[in-house]
Amino acid sequence: MGLTFYERVGFEGRRPSPFSWRIRYALAHKGIDFDVHPVRFADVETIRRLSGQHLTPIIDDNGKVTHETWDIANYLEHRFPDRPSLFGGAAGKGMARFINLWSDMQLGPPLQRVIYADFPAVLDPDDRAYFRSTRERDLGMSLEDACADPESKLTAFQQACAPIERTLAAQPYICGSSPAYADYIVFSVFQMARLGCPKEVVAKGSALADWRTRMILLYDGLGDRFPAYPR
Amino acid sequence: MGLTFYERVGFEGRRPSPFSWRIRYALAHKGIDFDVHPVRFADVETIRRLSGQHLTPIIDDNGKVTHETWDIANYLEHRFPDRPSLFGGAAGKGMARFINLWSDMQLGPPLQRVIYADFPAVLDPDDRAYFRSTRERDLGMSLEDACADPESKLTAFQQACAPIERTLAAQPYICGSSPAYADYIVFSVFQMARLGCPKEVVAKGSALADWRTRMILLYDGLGDRFPAYPR
Repeated sequence: MGLTFYERVGFEGRRPSPFSWRIRYALAHKGIDFDVHPVRFADVETIRRLSGQHLTPIIDDNGKVTHETWDIANYLEHRFPDRPSLFGGAAGKGMARFINLWSDMQLGPPLQRVIYADFPAVLDPDDRAYFRSTRERDLGMSLEDACADPESKLTAFQQACAPIERTLAAQPYICGSSPAYADYIVFSVFQMARLGCPKEVVAKGSALADWRTRMILLYDGLGDRFPAYPR
Repeated sequence: MGLTFYERVGFEGRRPSPFSWRIRYALAHKGIDFDVHPVRFADVETIRRLSGQHLTPIIDDNGKVTHETWDIANYLEHRFPDRPSLFGGAAGKGMARFINLWSDMQLGPPLQRVIYADFPAVLDPDDRAYFRSTRERDLGMSLEDACADPESKLTAFQQACAPIERTLAAQPYICGSSPAYADYIVFSVFQMARLGCPKEVVAKGSALADWRTRMILLYDGLGDRFPAYPR
């Protein structure tokens, strides 16, 4: 027994879920060995049976099941206190929670309007209808309508990114001179963009582009360990 | 000699500048005694002569002059390392820089569209034309036009606040269980709102409203030490 990471897996082993990426990097940051239990996007029953809810990822640490990425990060921080910290202390943990909510509420939604029409191609063919119906219900429109006028959608996403760009022009990581959980949160959104659509959403030569490259290369190139967008 | 805090002062001793508020709280957090040297909004020459630029506040620590609030906060952190930390360590400092930029770029601008038409009344009568002309040049329109359709402007500001509200529903301060510089940054925007316009911009009963009250009461009620909006 040990730690099992249940994560959603897409078409031919792809990993487009941003929520999995932030936890995968958190596990690497802590240097924790784990088994992966892949689940399909539409397979909500496996997850519900284990955790009482349907969102992934979840972790099972010798029978102790935790869901919700913020709670998983906190669980790992407390379970492995002698490993490198994800937050850098109590004030850092407080600020990381804000960055987590900012990312989920103000960075992720404008990205969806850029990539969602392309996103089904990275999912298992049997999961595409599930993805489309659940997301179209949430958006109140088709994926194609949500992504109409792509230039304005990309501009809106890049405006949401502006404080990250300015931060990374002044320091190598969001957490300063070395990466920690707030970097993994924000990077997970850019992984979803890289792996979930064929368009480049980051301006060439930007501080954000350089940071993304550094993030991909961390932990033996963890960000490139799985297949890219199908071409 | 000691530390002198040069800050802009408004009508009959008012302090509506958000940039002064974040440094005033930082000085209180560190428990540092200082003299105040008030400057008028339009008095750019005093500030330029001392610091080579025109933005306030600046601090003069026995002849060492520092401007730009982020740099002042960092100066205080390094100058007074034995006093309570403003950032809680290196990762916290990195994240606080992001929150500083987020606040300046994505929280302050929508607030301006809520309060700027009311704001001249808190300035010295001789400063009002300076404020109006510089801000209208930056906005490309009159203060009144910038604040037209007030309901939609308030909604846009409250949408920008949404991740703060969610953060403060989960923990007492942005920095966790006790306040630090990221709280002072964000609070300074709400001080500008409270002191710079007669409208309430925070929903009654919200976590944000409760946090703002706690922030006002810190350091012997520092947030209420100066006169409120003139009525």
